[in-house]
Amino acid sequence: MPPVTVTTASGATWQEVAADRQRHRDVTIASLESPPPKLLTNDVPLNTTGIPKSVLTAEDLDITERNVEDLASKLASGEWSAKKVIQAFMRRACLAQQLTNCVTELLPEEALKRAAELDDHLASTGKPVGPLHGVPISVKEHIGIKGHDLNGGFVSWVGRVAEEDALILQILRDAGAVFYVRTTQPQTLMHLETSNNLYGTTVNPHNTTLTAGGSSGGEGALVGIRGSVLGIGTDIGGSIRSPAANNGVFGFKPTALRLPVGGWTATMAGSDHIVGTIGPLSTSLEGVSLFVRTILRARPWLREPSLVPVPWKDEDQLGEEEGERRKLRVGVIWDDGVVRPHPPVAAALSRVVEKLKGSDEVEIVDWECWEHNLAWEIIVCYGIPLHFRILERLMLCVWIQCYEFSEFGPNYISLTEEPKKRRPFTPLGNHCYPYRNGFSSITHTYENTLRPCDSLLVNIFRIPTLWQAQQERDAYRTSYAALWNERAVDVILCPAGPGVAPKLGTARYWGYTSQWNLLNYPAIVFPTGVKVGGTQEEGDKAHEYPADYKPMSEADGYNYGLWNERGVEGYAGAPVSLQLVGRMYEDEKLLRALKTLLNAAGLANTC
Amino acid sequence: MPPVTVTTASGATWQEVAADRQRHRDVTIASLESPPPKLLTNDVPLNTTGIPKSVLTAEDLDITERNVEDLASKLASGEWSAKKVIQAFMRRACLAQQLTNCVTELLPEEALKRAAELDDHLASTGKPVGPLHGVPISVKEHIGIKGHDLNGGFVSWVGRVAEEDALILQILRDAGAVFYVRTTQPQTLMHLETSNNLYGTTVNPHNTTLTAGGSSGGEGALVGIRGSVLGIGTDIGGSIRSPAANNGVFGFKPTALRLPVGGWTATMAGSDHIVGTIGPLSTSLEGVSLFVRTILRARPWLREPSLVPVPWKDEDQLGEEEGERRKLRVGVIWDDGVVRPHPPVAAALSRVVEKLKGSDEVEIVDWECWEHNLAWEIIVCYGIPLHFRILERLMLCVWIQCYEFSEFGPNYISLTEEPKKRRPFTPLGNHCYPYRNGFSSITHTYENTLRPCDSLLVNIFRIPTLWQAQQERDAYRTSYAALWNERAVDVILCPAGPGVAPKLGTARYWGYTSQWNLLNYPAIVFPTGVKVGGTQEEGDKAHEYPADYKPMSEADGYNYGLWNERGVEGYAGAPVSLQLVGRMYEDEKLLRALKTLLNAAGLANTC
Repeated sequence: MPPVTVTTASGATWQEVAADRQRHRDVTIASLESPPPKLLTNDVPLNTTGIPKSVLTAEDLDITERNVEDLASKLASGEWSAKKVIQAFMRRACLAQQLTNCVTELLPEEALKRAAELDDHLASTGKPVGPLHGVPISVKEHIGIKGHDLNGGFVSWVGRVAEEDALILQILRDAGAVFYVRTTQPQTLMHLETSNNLYGTTVNPHNTTLTAGGSSGGEGALVGIRGSVLGIGTDIGGSIRSPAANNGVFGFKPTALRLPVGGWTATMAGSDHIVGTIGPLSTSLEGVSLFVRTILRARPWLREPSLVPVPWKDEDQLGEEEGERRKLRVGVIWDDGVVRPHPPVAAALSRVVEKLKGSDEVEIVDWECWEHNLAWEIIVCYGIPLHFRILERLMLCVWIQCYEFSEFGPNYISLTEEPKKRRPFTPLGNHCYPYRNGFSSITHTYENTLRPCDSLLVNIFRIPTLWQAQQERDAYRTSYAALWNERAVDVILCPAGPGVAPKLGTARYWGYTSQWNLLNYPAIVFPTGVKVGGTQEEGDKAHEYPADYKPMSEADGYNYGLWNERGVEGYAGAPVSLQLVGRMYEDEKLLRALKTLLNAAGLANTC
Repeated sequence: MPPVTVTTASGATWQEVAADRQRHRDVTIASLESPPPKLLTNDVPLNTTGIPKSVLTAEDLDITERNVEDLASKLASGEWSAKKVIQAFMRRACLAQQLTNCVTELLPEEALKRAAELDDHLASTGKPVGPLHGVPISVKEHIGIKGHDLNGGFVSWVGRVAEEDALILQILRDAGAVFYVRTTQPQTLMHLETSNNLYGTTVNPHNTTLTAGGSSGGEGALVGIRGSVLGIGTDIGGSIRSPAANNGVFGFKPTALRLPVGGWTATMAGSDHIVGTIGPLSTSLEGVSLFVRTILRARPWLREPSLVPVPWKDEDQLGEEEGERRKLRVGVIWDDGVVRPHPPVAAALSRVVEKLKGSDEVEIVDWECWEHNLAWEIIVCYGIPLHFRILERLMLCVWIQCYEFSEFGPNYISLTEEPKKRRPFTPLGNHCYPYRNGFSSITHTYENTLRPCDSLLVNIFRIPTLWQAQQERDAYRTSYAALWNERAVDVILCPAGPGVAPKLGTARYWGYTSQWNLLNYPAIVFPTGVKVGGTQEEGDKAHEYPADYKPMSEADGYNYGLWNERGVEGYAGAPVSLQLVGRMYEDEKLLRALKTLLNAAGLANTC
């Protein structure tokens, strides 16, 4: 690849930098062998997921409609060459880019070289190099690839080049994976949508008026349209699960500090207060498991010492009694007491729970979040759920870091003198933060003071403020652990968000996902097979908002309005997903529990 | 116990508060059955360790000269009652207080009540309640005990009362432990000595002109004179190991986040950048092992969710190949490239290494810290070892917290208007910080600005500063992990400090202990059986500083001066200890390695 030369540091405007990055992306796509045809915008319906069938060759379709486990098997046996597989996925990714704007660059050169090595290895030894031999994996852009730009979605970071591959890529490559495409993320990484000044907005393939989610929105859209069947995202408040849920695929946020993050870039680097995680999005549950298993078996903690040395467990699991064979005990959260989920989500949850109640393998209990429980009182303070107040403050600290080191902060000042040249906030950036409709005076202080280049903000939050919030975080985690000890569930089943994929620019409520980052619980999002407006929606009227509905919070009122304005038609085609949550470090148990649950509910473990 | 009423909040001066705390301590001591006689100051030699023999009864001596493993056995069998054992230790602790000023209060009421319960249980069931049935354990004051004052060594915190027992105490009590005495700590907890405005200074029983070390200095002195054979300390930069080394006992700092810390109090609460640890000081290696084993078997991570769920391992260990039986590979650090250890330490290290070289069980390699190694270059920057620069900055953040929330900070202002009433810094407090002879301009900025009530300081270090330092910390840890992967040692043998117990007010260099906090490696200090001025010092002239010695750093020059001024006579009687360090989370392997090493070197695993 050519060296990066167009940067703000070398005097270019932000528009010139963005144009150059897009040009680079298009060059990598144009270099493909037999790329798919350019589509005319007029030809494309809101739901784009049927288009690959009409455009790709039968062979490419056959390959890209398989899931990780099938691909791995055919690749390991040599039935399909790594080269053939990777070319099919590159072509489908190229199509995905046209339909959803999810790609920052293709990597045909490296991918074909690696595929050739793998094919040679299999031919000469008769053995695959590892459990992921030839499996194509897509990668969110801010996870570094040696020799490639590592801009993290910031105009001002274009020109930074990764000096080596992120550790997780090294491990996956050693296991046989082939990296072939890099995907988009939002400005600051701190949105549940995906839009930045470099590449614009990534949309949802199921309905292009909706967001693909974020921050791993490029992965979400790409996997959603099967331009990838296994991708790597990152999650500090919902950034794997939001795009997975919005696009109807599996998305797993492991317990923090199990999978290696060395070599990613983010403005929150160095912060410990809520630790970001890395994890897979996949079209199958087995794709998720294989990903995690492969990495943990490489004992990454010996190379990245912040990781905890908890090996992958095939059988026994923390907290499970030996030899005990009992029903899977599932706690259900119907709503979180702050924002009621939209009707399609409530209906899907209800349907799944009804099926589970009829199963011999599962026991259902309500997980009462807020009321009727003395142990819970500790987290409600000043009439505001404490977890929100803590999250707000901790997340604001992240935002400060964004401000400080991004194009809005002091770096920006040094690059240009004229206010006119200032790079704009994206729409959600302009809202500053999805919590702007939040609950505490801190948020309001923050909103009133945040202006580009306003250095006042960074002095509001000092180290003692952070540590105080961390004490509250720890106390909250301890209370929740006590609750879990008392209730003794195996997993919690709950919504994946306050609705299906939101309309662009409206994804403001993080609570259904960020709750589990605050607690550091592993959580996986899965598709229910239902889509908004589909035939299965019959009989779900009971879950509509009543005519006299009264919002239970400001955020709930906002969310209610989003449904009320658009209804079923507005979200037509959007997949309805749910979330399963496990206890800290019980990642393997969670994945096994989901398999049991899907089976008991009559749902597929692929999509 | 009577309610605490004399506090600065209720209008008392700091002198009145201190006098009341000391009165309370003396009342608890006076309530003992058959307390030992009051000693006349004139009668007491510098080395006080022989005094118990001449003052205690034969039975009390017999009991208190036993180690944890013997006591546990005799208590479990009922040969000795819990009541008899705890009374003997309370009397010896009372003597220790007279000789070293190490006690903040005795707990005769609770201890005798618990002992009676245990004796009844054994009489009625024939079984001990757990592995620590009746074993006396001493506790550093800032670890909360329900209903007792929890001042953390700050005058302004007197009157805070713990609402429940610290989690570690709950677990140990369930295993049969009896808590009978609380011990001193320094102002701010951030010194390797022990002195505060409430209780004055704790001295070393082996030579009362020397420090007992800190911050767990009360424990160090108490265990050093066998007023306890198992005590609980805490360590964020050397605070278990410094007092253990200075007093010639075993002291173990586990990997952080293995043992529970819930219920302790400290100004650095809520900080994550260098995580403090809790751990044992004991007169035997088995006392250390039993302590850790008992706690981990209670699965504390289910109650304190910040802990990592790594169970106690009896056999296999991370990084050890299955079935492999090979020599223990020990890397030796002779000096850290910053400060050369005093001659007695260098001589002891040399003697131990020579013996190990003659053993079939051990393989010795030099661990080159700084030179001749390309991998190491990354940590040297601007001519300054990076680990120092990082530590400095991280520790300064701790100091800010001390300032903010202690009697020097805003709280102080609200309590008194007159400068005359200001509570003084202790001698080391006046030096602000043991790193004042440090290396970077940050330290100098800090020194020039720190004045009581000067709020400027707290604005110097902001959240981005902290996160930047944390990124450097993580990079350093990763480099060190790579080094360990390459060199493949099992453990590192090194000095426990830059000398034996320092003269009061001179313990400024933390590097030999804080290095392992920065890396989060488990480390244990052990006695070599040698004392300064003892007969074994013959033949050690080779380790004296040469006449033309040139200090290798400012800190080295200071340390050299400490020896040069006083020599053997100045430190007479001080035990010479060393340190063994393991890899992160390999705590059990480290303890097993020390057993092997002591055996190979002909050293005792008790003291």
